[in-house]
Amino acid sequence: MGKGLKIVTIGGGSSYTPEIVEGMIKRKLDGSLPIEELYLVDIEEGKEKLEIVGNLARRMVEKAGADIKIHLTLDRRSALKDADFVTTQFRVGLLDARIRDEKIPLRYGLLGQETNGAGGFAKAQRTIPVILDICKDMEALCPAAWLINFTNPSGMVTEAVLKHTNIKVVGVCNVPYGIQALTAEAHKVDLADVFIEFAGLNHFVYGRKVYVKGIDKTTETLELFKRSDSFTMRNIPGLEWPFELVDALGVLPCPYHRYYYLKDIMLKHAEEEAENEGTRGEVVKRLEEQLFELYKDPDLNIKPPQLSERGGAHYSDVALNVIDGIYNDRKNIQTVNVRNNGTISDLSDEAAIECNCLIDKSGAHPINVGHLESSIRGLIQIMKVFEELTVEAAVTGDYGTALKALTINPLIGDSVKAKKVLDDIIKENKEYLPQYK
Amino acid sequence: MGKGLKIVTIGGGSSYTPEIVEGMIKRKLDGSLPIEELYLVDIEEGKEKLEIVGNLARRMVEKAGADIKIHLTLDRRSALKDADFVTTQFRVGLLDARIRDEKIPLRYGLLGQETNGAGGFAKAQRTIPVILDICKDMEALCPAAWLINFTNPSGMVTEAVLKHTNIKVVGVCNVPYGIQALTAEAHKVDLADVFIEFAGLNHFVYGRKVYVKGIDKTTETLELFKRSDSFTMRNIPGLEWPFELVDALGVLPCPYHRYYYLKDIMLKHAEEEAENEGTRGEVVKRLEEQLFELYKDPDLNIKPPQLSERGGAHYSDVALNVIDGIYNDRKNIQTVNVRNNGTISDLSDEAAIECNCLIDKSGAHPINVGHLESSIRGLIQIMKVFEELTVEAAVTGDYGTALKALTINPLIGDSVKAKKVLDDIIKENKEYLPQYK
Amino acid sequence: MGKGLKIVTIGGGSSYTPEIVEGMIKRKLDGSLPIEELYLVDIEEGKEKLEIVGNLARRMVEKAGADIKIHLTLDRRSALKDADFVTTQFRVGLLDARIRDEKIPLRYGLLGQETNGAGGFAKAQRTIPVILDICKDMEALCPAAWLINFTNPSGMVTEAVLKHTNIKVVGVCNVPYGIQALTAEAHKVDLADVFIEFAGLNHFVYGRKVYVKGIDKTTETLELFKRSDSFTMRNIPGLEWPFELVDALGVLPCPYHRYYYLKDIMLKHAEEEAENEGTRGEVVKRLEEQLFELYKDPDLNIKPPQLSERGGAHYSDVALNVIDGIYNDRKNIQTVNVRNNGTISDLSDEAAIECNCLIDKSGAHPINVGHLESSIRGLIQIMKVFEELTVEAAVTGDYGTALKALTINPLIGDSVKAKKVLDDIIKENKEYLPQYK
Amino acid sequence: MGKGLKIVTIGGGSSYTPEIVEGMIKRKLDGSLPIEELYLVDIEEGKEKLEIVGNLARRMVEKAGADIKIHLTLDRRSALKDADFVTTQFRVGLLDARIRDEKIPLRYGLLGQETNGAGGFAKAQRTIPVILDICKDMEALCPAAWLINFTNPSGMVTEAVLKHTNIKVVGVCNVPYGIQALTAEAHKVDLADVFIEFAGLNHFVYGRKVYVKGIDKTTETLELFKRSDSFTMRNIPGLEWPFELVDALGVLPCPYHRYYYLKDIMLKHAEEEAENEGTRGEVVKRLEEQLFELYKDPDLNIKPPQLSERGGAHYSDVALNVIDGIYNDRKNIQTVNVRNNGTISDLSDEAAIECNCLIDKSGAHPINVGHLESSIRGLIQIMKVFEELTVEAAVTGDYGTALKALTINPLIGDSVKAKKVLDDIIKENKEYLPQYK
Repeated sequence: MGKGLKIVTIGGGSSYTPEIVEGMIKRKLDGSLPIEELYLVDIEEGKEKLEIVGNLARRMVEKAGADIKIHLTLDRRSALKDADFVTTQFRVGLLDARIRDEKIPLRYGLLGQETNGAGGFAKAQRTIPVILDICKDMEALCPAAWLINFTNPSGMVTEAVLKHTNIKVVGVCNVPYGIQALTAEAHKVDLADVFIEFAGLNHFVYGRKVYVKGIDKTTETLELFKRSDSFTMRNIPGLEWPFELVDALGVLPCPYHRYYYLKDIMLKHAEEEAENEGTRGEVVKRLEEQLFELYKDPDLNIKPPQLSERGGAHYSDVALNVIDGIYNDRKNIQTVNVRNNGTISDLSDEAAIECNCLIDKSGAHPINVGHLESSIRGLIQIMKVFEELTVEAAVTGDYGTALKALTINPLIGDSVKAKKVLDDIIKENKEYLPQYK
Repeated sequence: MGKGLKIVTIGGGSSYTPEIVEGMIKRKLDGSLPIEELYLVDIEEGKEKLEIVGNLARRMVEKAGADIKIHLTLDRRSALKDADFVTTQFRVGLLDARIRDEKIPLRYGLLGQETNGAGGFAKAQRTIPVILDICKDMEALCPAAWLINFTNPSGMVTEAVLKHTNIKVVGVCNVPYGIQALTAEAHKVDLADVFIEFAGLNHFVYGRKVYVKGIDKTTETLELFKRSDSFTMRNIPGLEWPFELVDALGVLPCPYHRYYYLKDIMLKHAEEEAENEGTRGEVVKRLEEQLFELYKDPDLNIKPPQLSERGGAHYSDVALNVIDGIYNDRKNIQTVNVRNNGTISDLSDEAAIECNCLIDKSGAHPINVGHLESSIRGLIQIMKVFEELTVEAAVTGDYGTALKALTINPLIGDSVKAKKVLDDIIKENKEYLPQYK
Repeated sequence: MGKGLKIVTIGGGSSYTPEIVEGMIKRKLDGSLPIEELYLVDIEEGKEKLEIVGNLARRMVEKAGADIKIHLTLDRRSALKDADFVTTQFRVGLLDARIRDEKIPLRYGLLGQETNGAGGFAKAQRTIPVILDICKDMEALCPAAWLINFTNPSGMVTEAVLKHTNIKVVGVCNVPYGIQALTAEAHKVDLADVFIEFAGLNHFVYGRKVYVKGIDKTTETLELFKRSDSFTMRNIPGLEWPFELVDALGVLPCPYHRYYYLKDIMLKHAEEEAENEGTRGEVVKRLEEQLFELYKDPDLNIKPPQLSERGGAHYSDVALNVIDGIYNDRKNIQTVNVRNNGTISDLSDEAAIECNCLIDKSGAHPINVGHLESSIRGLIQIMKVFEELTVEAAVTGDYGTALKALTINPLIGDSVKAKKVLDDIIKENKEYLPQYK
Repeated sequence: MGKGLKIVTIGGGSSYTPEIVEGMIKRKLDGSLPIEELYLVDIEEGKEKLEIVGNLARRMVEKAGADIKIHLTLDRRSALKDADFVTTQFRVGLLDARIRDEKIPLRYGLLGQETNGAGGFAKAQRTIPVILDICKDMEALCPAAWLINFTNPSGMVTEAVLKHTNIKVVGVCNVPYGIQALTAEAHKVDLADVFIEFAGLNHFVYGRKVYVKGIDKTTETLELFKRSDSFTMRNIPGLEWPFELVDALGVLPCPYHRYYYLKDIMLKHAEEEAENEGTRGEVVKRLEEQLFELYKDPDLNIKPPQLSERGGAHYSDVALNVIDGIYNDRKNIQTVNVRNNGTISDLSDEAAIECNCLIDKSGAHPINVGHLESSIRGLIQIMKVFEELTVEAAVTGDYGTALKALTINPLIGDSVKAKKVLDDIIKENKEYLPQYK
């Protein structure tokens, strides 16, 4: 890594791209990351979007005066050659696939849950074969490169890469960062004053201890959140955590835990949403269309503020912080997805987990967790087995394994419904699931 | 244990008593168990039933020519003095409590499930304080005695005794025996020709391998059961296991797994049942009234055949086989509930598990299991955490712990409903739950 | 296994053969094992002995009137074809190799210790490549056969087979049986009245509990043994266990533990022995020569009593009990070497351990052990790592791995000496160690 | 901790005190630690030394212009009241006890090894009762204070505090720091450029990976050290590590590993030393006398350079870095002794281990280690059991436990010798070992 860095972003035509480009510009200018080349890679299907967003990226770079060469290409292999870092933000089947992921489960009175519910299962089936393919290319073309994955379901994708390839991978997610930001806001302190002992799985992570300026403020934080809109999402009618449960947990849940602890309310809300403004996927699709209209504007040369509404805030920072941590051997603590290797004593060594890690040039080294308190152990264990089976199904295309995965998922928990959902997923994703014969 | 044995049965007024008395007579006559005295113990509330069933027991013993002295008493402590074996078959709150356990969850669209669902939770809250009290008496009056528990939820009761007393305990259940019997029948072989590697939790046990005459017949057994009434319970409309799931599991589920894998059908059936013939508890209550009418008949001096319909078949054999195994240092294999101690690598050492054990004079020694296959690991882990929290709640009366237990139970899986169920359970069991203040 | 059994004994020319043949005759006659054919296999080098002992075996069978066909052959592959059980009792390099194993360490003031000391290391290096070769033949010619290994070092040989082949293997040893026999004698009861909870490694096994007629007599047994010749071997001057150590251990050591707990006395004794009557290997060699002279006698048609002096008493029973247990699906308890798989929580799953197992048609199923008491945990752990490294060295021929193995062995414990011993072993066993290049 | 810090140093009369005082002055002046008061505590026996070194400390503080109040006292309890940090550097029985620790084992041809050999055992027996007493005082007088222990054997002392008190403790040692410094020197880079993944036990720690500027330089470091004087200590004749062993280990041993891997050479050297210049304890004693002569000089107002020869270099930095890390919530990585809690998968949760930790206001959080490579696993496991038994013996005074500890220590490895050493230790330390009755 003597000279400038070569970064490759798979799924470069994503609407998120201006976000990560903004982050790269910042780090190029402040000297922390000597990025020389950025390859935005996409597939034929996404060529038009790639052009639009790629040209915006070029205008951003030029306007900022950052000397980063931006390449737009559909030729993944040539882009990967000698890359230093590869980031992923692709979406197999585009937002239409997500919308199906949301709607299929709703047919059977079930929550889709795009990351670790039935929706996440479907997305994993589409995504994992592609990521393994990318890794195969990387093994040949840039075996020393780091894969910074933020394609969802990030935990399962990371587990697949860890189990089936030789590529060095770190799975990232903006949820822990977001919780930290909300906590700082709630306590009216700076982001850096908050330190949270995160442990669990991607989109299923808990904050076991919350420290503000080094002092344990877990209980106080739970009190603040019990009364806070960001925790209860008051725009969802009736979404109120039983306070006794929050107290008894004694740890900070993540926003996605709503789907598990408040399943019925969330389901009712999802059903209403689907009937009215459309599922989240449908809303996002409209939003994205508007974004791309904006991106086309040849006078636009900064990240447009409307992008923040799209979700995925902090994604850029989270991914680039990891790259910065590795490249600069920072030895700082970041919350990422890695091989468990005994960190959480209640899960197998091979499992991907999400937890606080020391980041340095040699990668992400988890801070030890030990045994989980009984409050959270059971759910984390069953979710991990769901993930393990989902990854195995994605790799093998084995119907029975897929059925077992969906059956034990706490958002489904019934094999008859699981079978119906699975059959629909396979049928409606046919072109993306070659592994199911 | 030089001379004759003194056995104490707590809950002696139970309708099951003739079953166990029959077993004792058989073993007294064949010389395997030199039972001298049987104390049937009950509480004031059950005095009348104790008299009825106790007198039948005396007539049975006399008719058989078995020299066993039968004592009926409400004074537990005097009965326990110097006992060799203590068996438990009591039911705190009688069948009325069970009926409430079934009806409360149904109010909220949930299955009661009398052993490890919300019903099992409620029963554990009522039962565990009593069993710990019995053990305190035993520690003082017969510290060397064995407690053979078959009061449900047997696994959780066993875990409570293991964690909170010094009494030697074996938890028994007729489910593994029943599965073995059904398997023998399905294969048209003798019971002794079937050997099943059981592992899991009480009422949540799996047969990991099925051997017939020593040959692995797991797959064949699953085939037989897929098509068998006893497995699918065809009297429950629509109760059909997805065959792909059965194949993919690759292990034999137990009948109680229906509640977890076929939750929706079972719920619908329970709702219909409750509306028509009444819940299972109500049916059993009527059955029991008829049984006690029979028992009163001074000419009856054998176990009446109608008892078998009550359920609980094999209970006598299961319990007395354990007593026989211990007393006679048999070194045979029986499936019972014991401290895990590393047997199942995926559960904590302190957990009570149900598995095959070598039974000898020093107790029940589990055959090692190792890691569970991912097919069954997740559900067993979350059920064990549910049990762990349930036992802790029963001992401490902590509301939050109870709420966490119910929230993560796969038959509930929602904290708002869990809270409603919990509040009703506490309110409607007030007199039996002094630990909840 | 419908018709008669075909058993193959590798190393058939061993002086032990009459012992195992006697056991086979007994079991053939009592109907427990329908042995039809016994193949005694040896190599060119051992042809003459094979003839001698094979002809004796034939006379024994004839005299007993047992219809077992005995084949003598140097063609291992043809013998293995469709075998039901394969037993191994070969000795690569014959007794001359053993004598070298004993003498090399003595040069450097170290105990050879033919099983898990430097001698055991050397024997493992010679033996493991051969056993893996045999297993490769078995995979092709009799994949369903059971390998009953009693070639030493039996634990390490078993671990090698478990890790590097698909063959079903049980490692046997007469030490646990011998301890049980001595214990029975000390308590003046029948062998069957003694039950010992064995756990540990081959030739490094402890009796954690000793039961006599089901009653825990561990303390009493330790008392008896403290004062017993068979425990202290009074023919070895000064060999006295510090009583405080025996009491503090609280578990029954095995005879081989002398080398570890009483290292200095045993070393001094070995040095004296080597100078006077010769090492144990030299003594045994003379004994064997006499035995083969006896075996040649055409009038001899029973196992000659002199064989017992050779050591290895009970070997026949131990091996044939395992075959009987498997063939007849006995479900009895025997102490053998198997994959740990979590049985002893303090060792890795892949390790071979020696412990009590349920023996049935599907193999040997260990009774769970859990965590070892600190008294014995440390030594067992380091010995297991020694074994793990020794097996790895035997398979790879890696010098560094071999050096690490010898360095940490408690009988060596010094890398400079370890290197000298290793260099001599490799040089003097050249023809048997092709893996060291 | 709003205002200035109160630090208490137990064993304040130690010759090391000027070292730690120098470090405190530095950190007071640079603003990192607002130390207000330093209590140097000693016992009657050490009063004179306390006066001498205390006065030197006062002169140092004055000369530096650092506003730290220094109190000299024999009244430990009054000193502890409301302390923020307590450091320990006391030596029960003074250097005379150490000299005995060295000489007793030599009588029997054994290495004393003052930290984890027989010498360390003896020191633990004397020290642990005292440290537990100090902790009892702390629980009453300053329950929120941190105990920064650097009294040896630091790992065992830490384990005793973790297991038997409620005091927050971090065990420190200068060995990892020293290895890092030597490595930096060998690579001709700054200390901060070297990062080593330390894992193991106190004075038995390995560097599993050595990074220089973030790049893995483990192999190169081993090469450098193989040829380096600081690694082989060429002043010890014949002290040469077998290169093949160093290569095969693949990890960096610590200097104390010489005693285990090169036992015979080290023993010979210790015997020669004892005969000539005296044991290390005797040398140090002479050195200390000279130091105290120097300290008396009223014109001395800095740490005299001669102190460095005493050993213990970096002690001050190591201890004050931990205090700085905690007080200032640094979130940096330091190598200290903490509760294992699953960090090293091959040791029990309760064990004290030495490894890299994230240091912040809430303490020391270990970076996960996972399973140890077989190269080092066995020795670490047996040493940990030795430590566990040693701590238990120190607390209970149980002779048998003590004997088991010494017997399995790899520097002894013989129960007869262990008994002799133990008897001498108990006899010659009578006044310091009230727990042995």
